[in-house]
Amino acid sequence: MGDAFGQSFRITTWGESHGGGVGVVIDGCPAGLPITEEEIQFELDRRRPGQSRITTQRKESDLAVLLSGVFDGVTTGTAISIMVKNKDARSSAYDEMKDLYRPSHADYTYEVKYGLRDWRGGGRASARETIGRVAAGAIAKKILTQHCGMQTLAYVEQIHDIKAKIDRDMMTYEQIESNVVRCPDATAAPLMIERIDEIRKAGDSVGGIIGAVVRNPPLGLGEPVFDKLTADLSKAMMSLPATRGVEFGLGFGSVYMKGSTHNDPFVLKDGKVRTGTNNSGGIQGGISNGEDIFFRVAFKPTATINFEQATITRAGKTIQLRAKGRHDPCVLPRAVPIVEAMTNLVLVDHFLRNQLKNNQRFSP
Amino acid sequence: MGDAFGQSFRITTWGESHGGGVGVVIDGCPAGLPITEEEIQFELDRRRPGQSRITTQRKESDLAVLLSGVFDGVTTGTAISIMVKNKDARSSAYDEMKDLYRPSHADYTYEVKYGLRDWRGGGRASARETIGRVAAGAIAKKILTQHCGMQTLAYVEQIHDIKAKIDRDMMTYEQIESNVVRCPDATAAPLMIERIDEIRKAGDSVGGIIGAVVRNPPLGLGEPVFDKLTADLSKAMMSLPATRGVEFGLGFGSVYMKGSTHNDPFVLKDGKVRTGTNNSGGIQGGISNGEDIFFRVAFKPTATINFEQATITRAGKTIQLRAKGRHDPCVLPRAVPIVEAMTNLVLVDHFLRNQLKNNQRFSP
Amino acid sequence: MGDAFGQSFRITTWGESHGGGVGVVIDGCPAGLPITEEEIQFELDRRRPGQSRITTQRKESDLAVLLSGVFDGVTTGTAISIMVKNKDARSSAYDEMKDLYRPSHADYTYEVKYGLRDWRGGGRASARETIGRVAAGAIAKKILTQHCGMQTLAYVEQIHDIKAKIDRDMMTYEQIESNVVRCPDATAAPLMIERIDEIRKAGDSVGGIIGAVVRNPPLGLGEPVFDKLTADLSKAMMSLPATRGVEFGLGFGSVYMKGSTHNDPFVLKDGKVRTGTNNSGGIQGGISNGEDIFFRVAFKPTATINFEQATITRAGKTIQLRAKGRHDPCVLPRAVPIVEAMTNLVLVDHFLRNQLKNNQRFSP
Amino acid sequence: MGDAFGQSFRITTWGESHGGGVGVVIDGCPAGLPITEEEIQFELDRRRPGQSRITTQRKESDLAVLLSGVFDGVTTGTAISIMVKNKDARSSAYDEMKDLYRPSHADYTYEVKYGLRDWRGGGRASARETIGRVAAGAIAKKILTQHCGMQTLAYVEQIHDIKAKIDRDMMTYEQIESNVVRCPDATAAPLMIERIDEIRKAGDSVGGIIGAVVRNPPLGLGEPVFDKLTADLSKAMMSLPATRGVEFGLGFGSVYMKGSTHNDPFVLKDGKVRTGTNNSGGIQGGISNGEDIFFRVAFKPTATINFEQATITRAGKTIQLRAKGRHDPCVLPRAVPIVEAMTNLVLVDHFLRNQLKNNQRFSP
Repeated sequence: MGDAFGQSFRITTWGESHGGGVGVVIDGCPAGLPITEEEIQFELDRRRPGQSRITTQRKESDLAVLLSGVFDGVTTGTAISIMVKNKDARSSAYDEMKDLYRPSHADYTYEVKYGLRDWRGGGRASARETIGRVAAGAIAKKILTQHCGMQTLAYVEQIHDIKAKIDRDMMTYEQIESNVVRCPDATAAPLMIERIDEIRKAGDSVGGIIGAVVRNPPLGLGEPVFDKLTADLSKAMMSLPATRGVEFGLGFGSVYMKGSTHNDPFVLKDGKVRTGTNNSGGIQGGISNGEDIFFRVAFKPTATINFEQATITRAGKTIQLRAKGRHDPCVLPRAVPIVEAMTNLVLVDHFLRNQLKNNQRFSP
Repeated sequence: MGDAFGQSFRITTWGESHGGGVGVVIDGCPAGLPITEEEIQFELDRRRPGQSRITTQRKESDLAVLLSGVFDGVTTGTAISIMVKNKDARSSAYDEMKDLYRPSHADYTYEVKYGLRDWRGGGRASARETIGRVAAGAIAKKILTQHCGMQTLAYVEQIHDIKAKIDRDMMTYEQIESNVVRCPDATAAPLMIERIDEIRKAGDSVGGIIGAVVRNPPLGLGEPVFDKLTADLSKAMMSLPATRGVEFGLGFGSVYMKGSTHNDPFVLKDGKVRTGTNNSGGIQGGISNGEDIFFRVAFKPTATINFEQATITRAGKTIQLRAKGRHDPCVLPRAVPIVEAMTNLVLVDHFLRNQLKNNQRFSP
Repeated sequence: MGDAFGQSFRITTWGESHGGGVGVVIDGCPAGLPITEEEIQFELDRRRPGQSRITTQRKESDLAVLLSGVFDGVTTGTAISIMVKNKDARSSAYDEMKDLYRPSHADYTYEVKYGLRDWRGGGRASARETIGRVAAGAIAKKILTQHCGMQTLAYVEQIHDIKAKIDRDMMTYEQIESNVVRCPDATAAPLMIERIDEIRKAGDSVGGIIGAVVRNPPLGLGEPVFDKLTADLSKAMMSLPATRGVEFGLGFGSVYMKGSTHNDPFVLKDGKVRTGTNNSGGIQGGISNGEDIFFRVAFKPTATINFEQATITRAGKTIQLRAKGRHDPCVLPRAVPIVEAMTNLVLVDHFLRNQLKNNQRFSP
Repeated sequence: MGDAFGQSFRITTWGESHGGGVGVVIDGCPAGLPITEEEIQFELDRRRPGQSRITTQRKESDLAVLLSGVFDGVTTGTAISIMVKNKDARSSAYDEMKDLYRPSHADYTYEVKYGLRDWRGGGRASARETIGRVAAGAIAKKILTQHCGMQTLAYVEQIHDIKAKIDRDMMTYEQIESNVVRCPDATAAPLMIERIDEIRKAGDSVGGIIGAVVRNPPLGLGEPVFDKLTADLSKAMMSLPATRGVEFGLGFGSVYMKGSTHNDPFVLKDGKVRTGTNNSGGIQGGISNGEDIFFRVAFKPTATINFEQATITRAGKTIQLRAKGRHDPCVLPRAVPIVEAMTNLVLVDHFLRNQLKNNQRFSP
């Protein structure tokens, strides 16, 4: 059990790589939101395989079907069900996976936990599982855009040792989407693409860092002491395949500072309480303070590689494995819309938990 | 709302810095566990203020009282309530905090969220809140020790720019507790203590990194796809005051590697499936694989400093603030038992979610 | 938000009367359970419209498709998704419902709550919603049969003022299914069928009482103090369309007794602790005591009738309404498998919450 | 696990009959509500033992202490902790209970579930557990009164076979509280008191029915399809000690009617949509329709009696038991404020789940 996320906008995802399909049910979306299959499809297209030479070459169209909870183009307040059918796939391509444990995949842990596993294409541990998250995230995004004027941007900040220069305030969605690696730094992007391409040709894989910024978040999101915004965003990020770390504001870098330089002084700007610096990344005491929220997520190199690797079979025999088939040499370009979706799902959940007039208080 | 944590071993903490007390109620602790107030007190003493010259000089005895759920020294399966009374404190010492927002504290965000705040000593945002977590963690520890043979060790790995050399396999609890900074590296520890002392004298503050290792974890803990062990541990860590980042296994460092070197090959040791390396930090696909689990948590410098800082009052006037009173120049020594407690709370929760015979499956 | 039920075996249902379909996602079904679409279909066929002349004459085949969570005929421990497509229906038949509130239907309350409603066939408030419950209940039933040797039987006990004579201990599933009203009393059943038929011809509707008995329940199910077995079964029953009351054991009748006659003395039978009488209905202090669990559920007369009724339009105009189309003059025959499904869903949820070896306690 | 109730206003109760005390933690009470210990004490005094000759003669003052979550007389939005200390009680009075199972008590089921039990005075199964519910209910009542203009009245409707005549619309709180049995019918009340007194003298016990009415409930409370208002109120009532049944509106009586007479026609009164009759008891499709909500709860005769009863010991020996000490011959007079508290806890939970502006929908 663990297929659900969120408290007030609660999603339950389902589906395996090669079963009947994948999907999501959303419980708690308020009524009255205009939403179309096209808006959902738009986000799914951003995570779809086969977009460019630096992602997997598999062609999957991943068409979203909206099955319930929307009437005449508007949400009704009842459960929203969205489904994407799986293509009839030759699971025989995976026959060799049946009896061995691929290194740094979830084959072994699923089998030891559940006693059996759906070995076709990784089963539930396949990144295909994130389709439900992205579909639900499209609805979350619509709510946040329309009802909070909020914008979440995720982007590739680092691939291997190539770091982008990011101007968090000026960067645009168009810049991010202007290249296939989804890095807003026009200088770094081609280098990143070249690096991924090299590594792909060598049959190897590589990781990197995705940054995210939330512009114009509402004040007061986050529920102390356990459901802090930092805590729930961290859980969301670390529930994604291949993530290894997350940091907010100056993150691990804050360790090298002293309180006197790290503290963000409060100032009055245009009659509003603001902070002079934003080392806290927009969250203090677990609650958004109105400044931009930003954080970074580390992704490890893809586990599937075209190298010979030692591993063992279910029977305990040592063998050499070389993955066949088409895989992502680097998950980050396709993970950008997924990080964005999870961020929006956390924000909309906290936004809806916070709907008592005047935030969480009774009016005087 | 956000004062509860866990699904099967669910804690609800309560209490402010200067109210009637602080405490925790545990819902879901199985019956039949021997537990005493002394075992709880032992852990509380490790987080207590006034332990050494590098922590706050406030003297608080923090005596735990076990109010329910235990009969004749054994848990009964009903809710366990543990309370620590607050000392009668001169809240007048905090009078100046009433009308201003301390930089990088939660004063402003609490007030903007709730419309009012308990300004005495930080109210609910005070680190005093963690007493309930540590008390509950003592019970979690007892279960894990007794029923899984598991051991969690947290320790200070870095203070400011002073890094310890850690031998994760050989390090002992005694080494950690042998010095007041709780660093198992006998060479680094005195340097860390000296650094904290210098910074304390300068009225400033400093952060650092706490590492944690779980030895001998059971196989199969973690519930895909959202309640992965990495996800729930991350949420736990990022729900603590002053944390800024968390990373598992090689974490942000894995970004610089390729799949061919990062992947952990499976091998057979003593008839058991093991991994040759443990770059994954004991968790694959969100599920424990039986190897040691390890992760690192970044703490920012303490927000309270004895420096003059600019800030604004509730009325919007810019003023200069200099904190009075006794505070921690570095939270890490006292945060070690808190990280340990939260780790154990996550592990026991997943252990109890996993109690169907043979993990999560029906026996054949 | 309210489309999910259960804690350890958690179902989320979705779908409206005339949308893309209806379905359910199950989070928390353990791995290793053999289950087929046929077993699910079997229960759906029992609630299907058009079974006999005393139910609605609409023909709907309601074919279940198992989309995820089952591999090679066995559950994998991941989310199980089951879907039933809706037939393309002439929603024009419901055009007249668009602008008025049918008496004792949910038209008005849905609209006032959500600001709009899917008026086609009752939308989410349609009894069609229970398809997801029955599909999930088929899996719950399989677990309980296979892993607890438990049997749940629901049956019609009263229609209008015709009461069946029930021998709770001897009654069989075959007796219940031997007639279209699903009443095990061979004398009362034809009278009930005749009464329903008369009322149907008069264009009117009628309610009744469904009884349920759980044979051979495991000891120790139920979680004090709020999640008592009585409490969770009551919630389950009262979440069904048209239910008006529920009572356990002697129920409202116990009011006329004194403690000296109502109390169930403990006795030793075949070396086991049993009760001499079972006035408690198998649940004491909210926990099953091993005796048969039994309870009764009251259903009001169907709201849809072929009579002229006064009501008002959305614009506030008083009008006369006469329902067209085919409807159930009495919901009870088709509600029997639904009551059974909800009972099994509660029992399997508590069974799985109770899976620590030796019930909820650590072994000594 | 099962000591918590509610989703948005979530209470966790703790405590046994003879441990350190009993109490409740409330997670989710909004900030800004004025509340005093006196308001909580007022409700506790209504459930306190020793109020009259028809309740138990034990004297317990049950003083509430407000430990957290309230500052300067106003809620702060953080967890509210309320505690009532237990009097030092001679648990020796219960020594005889240690080794036997009292008929129709929870002694046996607790022991079989948990492997041990706190036998002093019933432990967690003692009605003393409801103190936390009543304390939390006092805060719920304050919110509902102040922010919805709602009023909940519970009252004794029947004792044994003595039925009160209730005018649900005209009856007042003062009438209910004007006599020790808490029945608003001035004719029936003395008969009820006399009956209880007779039965008390005979050493026996008796049950009855408590009715409840909610006046002026907001429109739109209740979350289909599982968290219907009927469903959650039923769970609340059936989680109370000694309850055996619950029914809404005409309840079991509706079975004898036809749709044509049971249906509530919609009418326009003073420009508002109302129903001409209120057979539905104010809830349609699980959602409040603005009419008064009413329901009835059956309580069985108290299990503790001064009669000799056969039972068995833990060792399986048959013995004769005669309860000593002071007990309630009829729980209903003291259960009235408990039913009221649980009703208010459900209503406030749904009220807070429903706080998006304009109920559950986005404004156009």
